[in-house]
Amino acid sequence: MAGLALRVAGRQLSQRGGSGAPILLRQMFEPESCTYTYLLGDRESREAILIDPVLETAPRDAQLVRELGLRLLYAGQSGGAQADLHIDEGDSIRFGRFALETRASPGHTPGCVTFVLNDHSMAFTGDALLIRGCGRTDFQQGCAKTLYHSVHEKIFTLPSDCLIYPAHDYHGLTVSTVEEEPTLNPRLTLSCEEFVKVMDNLNLPKPKQIDIAVPANMRCGVQSPPS
Amino acid sequence: MAGLALRVAGRQLSQRGGSGAPILLRQMFEPESCTYTYLLGDRESREAILIDPVLETAPRDAQLVRELGLRLLYAGQSGGAQADLHIDEGDSIRFGRFALETRASPGHTPGCVTFVLNDHSMAFTGDALLIRGCGRTDFQQGCAKTLYHSVHEKIFTLPSDCLIYPAHDYHGLTVSTVEEEPTLNPRLTLSCEEFVKVMDNLNLPKPKQIDIAVPANMRCGVQSPPS
Repeated sequence: MAGLALRVAGRQLSQRGGSGAPILLRQMFEPESCTYTYLLGDRESREAILIDPVLETAPRDAQLVRELGLRLLYAGQSGGAQADLHIDEGDSIRFGRFALETRASPGHTPGCVTFVLNDHSMAFTGDALLIRGCGRTDFQQGCAKTLYHSVHEKIFTLPSDCLIYPAHDYHGLTVSTVEEEPTLNPRLTLSCEEFVKVMDNLNLPKPKQIDIAVPANMRCGVQSPPS
Repeated sequence: MAGLALRVAGRQLSQRGGSGAPILLRQMFEPESCTYTYLLGDRESREAILIDPVLETAPRDAQLVRELGLRLLYAGQSGGAQADLHIDEGDSIRFGRFALETRASPGHTPGCVTFVLNDHSMAFTGDALLIRGCGRTDFQQGCAKTLYHSVHEKIFTLPSDCLIYPAHDYHGLTVSTVEEEPTLNPRLTLSCEEFVKVMDNLNLPKPKQIDIAVPANMRCGVQSPPS
């Protein structure tokens, strides 16, 4: 198939089209909250989706969308905050030739979801499964037992070479796989009973922005812009 | 080809072998210096190379190498500090079925190199080319004109879909391409003359760790461990 050409910032930016073209994926980092935002796009149709955007880095993300000549369809949260589009287990969010399958993965919050690319090559696990870790379960109606079952039933059942992209990382790691986490994750290799015991005794400090984030989540993700 | 199996942390971790298997690539971030370290491995032979490691995160990197069942051959710096193995323009650093081609890309320092994967699908540009930016040229025998020619002749001549992985990013971006940078990089889309003028008038503050880094580079990268 012939290449596409599109205009970016007044210049021609050629694109390799073709149905065999891999998906466009960009991972972006916000250091204050250690959040990863993901931009996923179809190189052919230029339709794109943003997963786990952060308010403070929205201008950066919007600029990249513009520069790459993409058309943003949705900006979705995996963490339970949903603004415009309400999604349920099994819903499919289409962008161009691709789609994200929604898998409910509660436990960190009741509303957490994991987005899985339709070919099962990558999963965006939000706060449920982190690289060698997992989201805390001691606030926002969290439940360790529920999280354990979510991860084992909804994520660890994906193909072993499925890439795992979490919403946060605190050690500078960027990606893992379904092969690694059931083997190397120090928490999720425990029995469910041991896991619940560990999670119930973490004694973590209260997150810095929780007094802003929880009420905003309760209002379906609608926040006031930072002053 | 049948899959390999290797033992990681006392458990079996199966590996998809086969000559068609993609290279293993992990990007890791160090927030103090905003440095990216890259782990590249051959999934079949398990031979691996580390590019731009940071002293403070060496334990993390070593743990990942161990966990993935890799055997580290070299830990290479693109920034001009070379400890054990001295490399020159055109040298090829083999690991398993892959190799990194060395391209001299001076200008930030006289010793900077860009490592290019032998299939030209990815380039590790060190401090020469950053995403929408470039390394400063106002210390360590830097030269803006030299940097301009390095980037245009050694990096922008790679295939347009070649991924660009820099040694640093200060905005949370993780990767770019040879398609994007010659079009969207605000510095390197200038003429050489304009570029030199911009670089000579940046008036940047002195980097925090420069008094440690420069003498260490002069001693070929041999540093005292942090106290």
